[in-house]
Amino acid sequence: MADYTKMWTDLGLNLDNHDALLENLGGAYQSIFMSQEHRPEGMGYFDFVMSEAHGLRIQELRDEQEAGRKIIGSFCVFVPEELVLAAGCTSVGLCAGADFAQEEVEKVLPRNTCSLIKSFFGFKLGKVCPYMEVSDLIVGENTCDGKKKSFEIFSQMVPNFFQMDLPQNKAPMARKLLKHEYEAFIAKLEEMTGKRIGLEDLKQGIATVNAKRNALARLSKLRTANPSPISGLDALLINQIAFLDNPVRFTGKVNALCDELELLVKENKGAKVENAPRVVISGCPMAIPNWKVPAVIEATGAVIVGEESCIGERGQRNTTDASADTIDGLIDAVVDRYFKIDCAVFTPNQERVEHIKEMAKNTNADGVIHYGLQFCQPYIMESFSVEKTLEKDGVSVLRLETDYSQEDMGQLSTRVEAFVEIIK
Amino acid sequence: MADYTKMWTDLGLNLDNHDALLENLGGAYQSIFMSQEHRPEGMGYFDFVMSEAHGLRIQELRDEQEAGRKIIGSFCVFVPEELVLAAGCTSVGLCAGADFAQEEVEKVLPRNTCSLIKSFFGFKLGKVCPYMEVSDLIVGENTCDGKKKSFEIFSQMVPNFFQMDLPQNKAPMARKLLKHEYEAFIAKLEEMTGKRIGLEDLKQGIATVNAKRNALARLSKLRTANPSPISGLDALLINQIAFLDNPVRFTGKVNALCDELELLVKENKGAKVENAPRVVISGCPMAIPNWKVPAVIEATGAVIVGEESCIGERGQRNTTDASADTIDGLIDAVVDRYFKIDCAVFTPNQERVEHIKEMAKNTNADGVIHYGLQFCQPYIMESFSVEKTLEKDGVSVLRLETDYSQEDMGQLSTRVEAFVEIIK
Repeated sequence: MADYTKMWTDLGLNLDNHDALLENLGGAYQSIFMSQEHRPEGMGYFDFVMSEAHGLRIQELRDEQEAGRKIIGSFCVFVPEELVLAAGCTSVGLCAGADFAQEEVEKVLPRNTCSLIKSFFGFKLGKVCPYMEVSDLIVGENTCDGKKKSFEIFSQMVPNFFQMDLPQNKAPMARKLLKHEYEAFIAKLEEMTGKRIGLEDLKQGIATVNAKRNALARLSKLRTANPSPISGLDALLINQIAFLDNPVRFTGKVNALCDELELLVKENKGAKVENAPRVVISGCPMAIPNWKVPAVIEATGAVIVGEESCIGERGQRNTTDASADTIDGLIDAVVDRYFKIDCAVFTPNQERVEHIKEMAKNTNADGVIHYGLQFCQPYIMESFSVEKTLEKDGVSVLRLETDYSQEDMGQLSTRVEAFVEIIK
Repeated sequence: MADYTKMWTDLGLNLDNHDALLENLGGAYQSIFMSQEHRPEGMGYFDFVMSEAHGLRIQELRDEQEAGRKIIGSFCVFVPEELVLAAGCTSVGLCAGADFAQEEVEKVLPRNTCSLIKSFFGFKLGKVCPYMEVSDLIVGENTCDGKKKSFEIFSQMVPNFFQMDLPQNKAPMARKLLKHEYEAFIAKLEEMTGKRIGLEDLKQGIATVNAKRNALARLSKLRTANPSPISGLDALLINQIAFLDNPVRFTGKVNALCDELELLVKENKGAKVENAPRVVISGCPMAIPNWKVPAVIEATGAVIVGEESCIGERGQRNTTDASADTIDGLIDAVVDRYFKIDCAVFTPNQERVEHIKEMAKNTNADGVIHYGLQFCQPYIMESFSVEKTLEKDGVSVLRLETDYSQEDMGQLSTRVEAFVEIIK
């Protein structure tokens, strides 16, 4: 790895903290990912991206900045990458998946806050996230109470912040609100770049993101094979990298990997043995490096065949209709696409449980593991009806509630092993 | 007390559970309220209302139903009583302030849910709340995640449910949403009664509620005297009864009490000694019979001089402008009045901290105790900035986080005593 010390210093990172984080991350990556057998060769690219996530990729973003592009950091799949790209900007995901500087965090946030929120505060307070520091604008959104209210505090820690309101149901008024907020977001981007978004810009932005989503959908579909040609850990990793990498390059690499996976499927080669227990994981997003529960699941010999998560199907399925010939028509198409997202902050949210059922069916899953982050009220409350509805349909469900610590690893393993034993 | 066994049976209450609840409640009331010294005579009425809260008042509501009125139960000060009265209906508050049937509750709700939500589930599952059972319609609302998502489950337990969407900020689009929801609520009421709301109905509804709020404001103002002529416990009780009693009768009784309090102030007579430490309590609502923290505070000899709470100033301040001459104009006035409510579900919510400051100043408070229900993310997250802002202004703040159990009474007493010692 090249020496990025100067870049990290320029970005204001705390080098000691950052070294500690990278060492930790590197170790986890080795033991969780590199120890897997039967990995497709195409994963080499994603391993490389991960190894350079705080290095070369940040250098690229800084080079883009030099060339006049703005970097837009966000925490939620409701922030449309199409609009960011159309404005000539680059989108990066900031959600954080590891505990950091927890003592500092608990001075400004309640202890009973979910790990994901505490994590991005910790990354900021500990000065270890180059994506946050390189961002020209950070976008927060009114999803759950925890994020909505904590952004009031977080927004004071960063120089340029935009808060996006979001609806709470799927009524016509709610769609109006979403469109209004996307228009305000466009206005903010245009103000930053000093340039209006043109029709072709928007068409191109939509095309780029559609291509990415189509590649990810292709990957999802290949996992329906038995044996699945790729592990759930690797597939999750790709979905995580989707938020960080250059979208065009990323799409090419995912498609190249899919070409390889198609061959593996033909040869009946899989990441796990044929007829390995098949699990769909559903619930809260898992940001890098939150690989805890998938690692526990696949350590049992089971294979994860789908992620019903913002970092997975919920965030990436559905493309945007690019056929309109006016900017307003295209914005409407973007709104329509995002308005379908079945996040648990919506009420009612019956679409989500229907989608989980559909995923379980399409992937020939033997069971669904619902992953709830402790104190995430929307997903944990919804997990009760998810369990009830799926069980009624004959799908076995295990509800887990955990955080980013390692303290409950023993208990988690025991519960997951028992569940896999039942469903296999 | 008359024998209401038949009525309770008709309502479907579980008589054993209900007897246990009433006995418990009666005992708490005796020890917390009736043991107070220097109570104004006018409290006799409110003691009577409390003693008949599950008896005579329910009988009255049933008599109203016989006469064709509909009873509308709700959980939130965003459900406008003006509209309910204008439709010829009666509004009752359903928020519950005690643990009940917790084992049953935890089968349908996560453990990490705030006591208030668990409580109304417990009251429903344990069949002990005659207000819930007598209601022709129950209104839920999208305030916090906990309520929003738990109403998906609760709505299936009651025959007639209406979910009201609410905005998350105070932008023009948010006001539009609120108006839209109030119009939908009016339509629902009109559908139930089979009668359109007329201009005079709405004017009368507004007048009745304004009179009630003016009486409560008069009560609040009298508490600025030193010594305060009424205890915080008694004032809280009146604010709690505001959600249950007939509004016209209630207003008369509050005004009669205020007449008496004016005399007491002139005579320099108070609920506590002159110069007793003065506390404003701020934060989560305290529904009947949640008197835990105020009882702890006033047991130290301090007097509570204001409640910055939905059951208190936040819910009752500001009247509705009744001057418009069209129904739409009056609805706008209702929307304007409710849009000012500074609930912590809004972001940003700077108005609230300004209002707490103002209350502390106007009441000559020596300190503010912030009351957060465990797992209530909006209020507990906001308590950090409340504390910071008030302390910067020289106002001492104690942040409490508790639930409805009695387990932390010792710890609470110790912390409150220490705080009162500091501020006095």
